[in-house]
Amino acid sequence: MNSMNYADEALRKHKELKGKIGLELKDQLDSKDKLSTYYTPGVGAVSSYVAEHPEEARDYTWLNNVVAVISDGSAVLGLGDIGPYGALPVMEGKGMLFKHFAGVDAVPIVLDVHSADEIVAAVKAIAPSFGGINLEDIAAPICFEVEERLKKELLIPVFHDDQHGTAIVVLAGLINSMKITGRNLNDCRIVCVGAGAAGTAIMKLIHQYAPQAEILAVDSKGVISSDRTDLNDEKKKLLEFTNHDNVSGSLEDGLKSADIFIGVSKAGLLSVDMVKTMAKDPIIFAMANPVPEILPEEAAKAGVAIMATGRSDFPNQVNNAIAFPGIFRGALDNKVRDITEEHKMKVSEVIAGLVENPTPEEIIPSVLDERLVPEIAKVII
Amino acid sequence: MNSMNYADEALRKHKELKGKIGLELKDQLDSKDKLSTYYTPGVGAVSSYVAEHPEEARDYTWLNNVVAVISDGSAVLGLGDIGPYGALPVMEGKGMLFKHFAGVDAVPIVLDVHSADEIVAAVKAIAPSFGGINLEDIAAPICFEVEERLKKELLIPVFHDDQHGTAIVVLAGLINSMKITGRNLNDCRIVCVGAGAAGTAIMKLIHQYAPQAEILAVDSKGVISSDRTDLNDEKKKLLEFTNHDNVSGSLEDGLKSADIFIGVSKAGLLSVDMVKTMAKDPIIFAMANPVPEILPEEAAKAGVAIMATGRSDFPNQVNNAIAFPGIFRGALDNKVRDITEEHKMKVSEVIAGLVENPTPEEIIPSVLDERLVPEIAKVII
Repeated sequence: MNSMNYADEALRKHKELKGKIGLELKDQLDSKDKLSTYYTPGVGAVSSYVAEHPEEARDYTWLNNVVAVISDGSAVLGLGDIGPYGALPVMEGKGMLFKHFAGVDAVPIVLDVHSADEIVAAVKAIAPSFGGINLEDIAAPICFEVEERLKKELLIPVFHDDQHGTAIVVLAGLINSMKITGRNLNDCRIVCVGAGAAGTAIMKLIHQYAPQAEILAVDSKGVISSDRTDLNDEKKKLLEFTNHDNVSGSLEDGLKSADIFIGVSKAGLLSVDMVKTMAKDPIIFAMANPVPEILPEEAAKAGVAIMATGRSDFPNQVNNAIAFPGIFRGALDNKVRDITEEHKMKVSEVIAGLVENPTPEEIIPSVLDERLVPEIAKVII
Repeated sequence: MNSMNYADEALRKHKELKGKIGLELKDQLDSKDKLSTYYTPGVGAVSSYVAEHPEEARDYTWLNNVVAVISDGSAVLGLGDIGPYGALPVMEGKGMLFKHFAGVDAVPIVLDVHSADEIVAAVKAIAPSFGGINLEDIAAPICFEVEERLKKELLIPVFHDDQHGTAIVVLAGLINSMKITGRNLNDCRIVCVGAGAAGTAIMKLIHQYAPQAEILAVDSKGVISSDRTDLNDEKKKLLEFTNHDNVSGSLEDGLKSADIFIGVSKAGLLSVDMVKTMAKDPIIFAMANPVPEILPEEAAKAGVAIMATGRSDFPNQVNNAIAFPGIFRGALDNKVRDITEEHKMKVSEVIAGLVENPTPEEIIPSVLDERLVPEIAKVII
């Protein structure tokens, strides 16, 4: 099916099923004894015990396996700020992915508040209900403050998947791209277009992994440089580790001689002529959805060495679902409080390592690769 | 099993199962096409549609079948303020009851906040995630303000089960008790001991149903009268429809000649001698848990006509699970925004009517009566 047919099929199936998830019981309530064991009076003993030993709550409740998938609907897919109801089908879908790939119970929580203070307050209030928090589709720059504060203030893992899930898979793809093209990431010149949630996280993770890499951040106004007067705090922070030569100008200006183009921006932004100004054997990650910054057939004309997109109908799909199920599986099973930069880099290496013989058509494993969750979970310790 | 054994069995089973509920998927993600239908790119069409038609969100998501079971852990069972982690096993148990009896998906949400303002803010923030809100085990008097404000400010049904679930089943039992003892509730003198969440709701509902009934509210300090200087606002409000003769004094003073004793207070509060001062053929609802205000064998000695408790091992168990599953089933299916006083009284009549031939040993149907949910749901319109 093409994506138009998927739209029709999706509307039809969602309406038929009236939602995609439900609750299931681990035991049936088919006797008075079971009612008295799982509810009153028996549950009173469990509640008393857990109240006295809250650190053991996960052993007596579903806390050991449940995460909240939380969005305020402010940056849903490529649709923008469509609010909590519009976000709900995506969060339910994420719940399906969590369960299918990692056996994790994920509850969609869509929020009717949008400031960082209100989102943080709401998530903190409900946090004892969950063993982990997956933040989703919250617009930049609020998403950065929300995640940072929650990571500090909560005792459970908090992970903004749009940032880090994407960054981890991009880094995995770059690791294998280096092998194929005989490059070292530390020697590369990298242009990242899009300095929102995903772009910022990608640049930060690349910098962590390859501190000598030369990174240029580009937004809709051009290269992010200290000459710009329109930068918000998050974009200013990018200058701490990008654009050391303080290049100014347009995407075209920045792109000259670059080894790697990373796009989390918009359809058709990158032309064949622009690619031709890049270094030999350029690497293109064009992840705008549903239409990438440049289509693979166009990129081929420009002599691109490796091409990745966000789409499942082209080779090398950068799909967050490669990373987040294993990350949460590991965090829950290994009682990890915080997903660190170290964890993320290790996960990228695990993902890259699952492709035994990287080729330009296969730098990233399929999301259906069943080794992903157990192998990733092992390094979240 | 006795309740001691239930405690052991409950601890054992909860630890074995590691919680009692999980998520289930309504369809499997066993192909790339299904991934593309339920998640990207297909889900984008559903999100766009729902964002434009939020009133149809329930037709495309699980909103039509999901409620939140929300507690701050401040008044859990008879255990008191044991906090959110202690509350979680009870809320999960409530989730089991919701699913088993009514097919409703109920998500436990335990809160790390305790003021009315914070609880209201948190619940409002997450409200778009749910089709209904079941408040549970929140201490009086905060529970009254929380429920009142949420009912006003949210567009989905909000129901504090400790108040209204109990009140509805008590009224059902009283309706049948009237038939058995040949009384009219409007002619009765009723003493209610315990003026917290449940007691207040019971008195209010009885007053709605039988405005001429003479009701005395009693708390730990004695009869609630205008002479008292220690009353909070909620207790002062009780004086608008209780204690018209402004009786002062102890429970013993208030109880003389009463037709009905309703206890939601503590174990052993009511003695045989006290019951003997009541009217002939007194009706006793002794619902303190796990040990009632008076045990049935003691009450029998005092010539009690009808006796109900909160326990499943005695006749006439006042169990909220008789009412709430059908109420939420009806509210969700019939798109009812608000559970009104009219609804509650109708539900009491439905419950009472399901006992074809009321006897002193059967004034309330069993929680296992399968007619309850469909018959109750019919009147929530």
